[in-house]
Amino acid sequence: MRRLKVTLEYDGTNFAGFQKQTGTGIRTVQGVLEESLKRLTGEDILTIGAGRTDSGVHALSQVVHLDTCSPIPLDRFPAALSGQLPPDVVALDAALVDASFHARYKAIAKRYSYLVFNSGMHQALWRNYCYRFPSSLDMVTMQKGAAVLTGEHDFMAFSAAGSSVKSTVRRIFSFNVEHQGDWVKITVTAGGFLYKMVRLMVGTLLDVGRGKLSPDQVKEILEAGERGQGGPTVPPQGLYLARVYYPGEETRDMREFP
Amino acid sequence: MRRLKVTLEYDGTNFAGFQKQTGTGIRTVQGVLEESLKRLTGEDILTIGAGRTDSGVHALSQVVHLDTCSPIPLDRFPAALSGQLPPDVVALDAALVDASFHARYKAIAKRYSYLVFNSGMHQALWRNYCYRFPSSLDMVTMQKGAAVLTGEHDFMAFSAAGSSVKSTVRRIFSFNVEHQGDWVKITVTAGGFLYKMVRLMVGTLLDVGRGKLSPDQVKEILEAGERGQGGPTVPPQGLYLARVYYPGEETRDMREFP
Repeated sequence: MRRLKVTLEYDGTNFAGFQKQTGTGIRTVQGVLEESLKRLTGEDILTIGAGRTDSGVHALSQVVHLDTCSPIPLDRFPAALSGQLPPDVVALDAALVDASFHARYKAIAKRYSYLVFNSGMHQALWRNYCYRFPSSLDMVTMQKGAAVLTGEHDFMAFSAAGSSVKSTVRRIFSFNVEHQGDWVKITVTAGGFLYKMVRLMVGTLLDVGRGKLSPDQVKEILEAGERGQGGPTVPPQGLYLARVYYPGEETRDMREFP
Repeated sequence: MRRLKVTLEYDGTNFAGFQKQTGTGIRTVQGVLEESLKRLTGEDILTIGAGRTDSGVHALSQVVHLDTCSPIPLDRFPAALSGQLPPDVVALDAALVDASFHARYKAIAKRYSYLVFNSGMHQALWRNYCYRFPSSLDMVTMQKGAAVLTGEHDFMAFSAAGSSVKSTVRRIFSFNVEHQGDWVKITVTAGGFLYKMVRLMVGTLLDVGRGKLSPDQVKEILEAGERGQGGPTVPPQGLYLARVYYPGEETRDMREFP
């Protein structure tokens, strides 16, 4: 028996999120992953993911751990597993880890990217891979709003009901707003995130960008700490789990945007 | 009756190309466009497209012309038409044109982009929007190969059987190879293209980039002028019709890559 850390990329469009929903027939990433592992190894393998992405949310780099007795050599494992997975999930990497490794509990940080298409015109291409926002956006004030949220804060105002956590304090390490033509990419790295925290923060920054909120008002909302005051929640298809960080890793990203 | 020039964006993934195939039940862009125009106006409207994109090929900006008696104001026409179109086709613009305008015959140039994901790893995201090419590519020799093809030449070597054209001489105005991380974008603008010419030229440039062909050999293939010597043909899902040019137009692109 060995423990593997497997890195996955997936297109979230046709999944009802990461987490399996046993016996429901609902298509989830974890569900198809465990079915594919069964076909590959003959074993009933349980997987633990670093993050439970919602329905429609994509992953450039999701991490899971699993225990297997399979003799498949490690360097062939990603291709062998990808061969069993449907085309919208790919195994990018497999690494041998200590039995104490845990994809979720050992993660020290995660990075998410959110892709906005800032245009008044509807779109046909990439409509499942970004959020179209028609109002014109001021990048400088958006970056100021992001700076307000950076650091260690109680993010209660930017959490949605639906999960029970002991503390709503989190630390954001970096929060960047970039644009290229009509495309705006918002990238946030934090030690951890509350439920829907990224989508609530991005919704708030878009309100800042279009002049509905000031960066000072973002600070007030953060400090008041009332659930439901941050937001609105932007839709899932613009969101990408971009990286999960563990202690002592090299730093190259597996996947980049085009 | 007025003649309109309508600009469309579409995701070619679920279409059997642009050109309608009446009575077959096959889903084409022109087919759904004419059905949508019928619902919008009550008229049986025939459309003429600037280019007949193949199955799986996308359009950032395809141009069609059509004649209609509909009283819908011009500035509302794109949104009204998009409201009838399926989500994978959008009308970006509608302009009133002279009755002598013809989307195909009046076009003076077209631009295509081809998106390559240059990685040894399989991909789940954007797999329908690019071509994954695993061998490492030398951008400098690719650009030299593109320079060989630029200008006025007989492109017989880079044409596929299946269309009857009087002449196989075409003029390429510009041909650029750019990369950003693992993504390579090849953009070519020409007065016109032969059937599958872009995909054959891109296949040749990828052979140049991986060292299988030299730019000098591309010149020999071009000059020998034998059909089938250029290539291989790269798959359709990396190809985008990016722009159709008409005399006397402003120059801003309607759509850009993310």
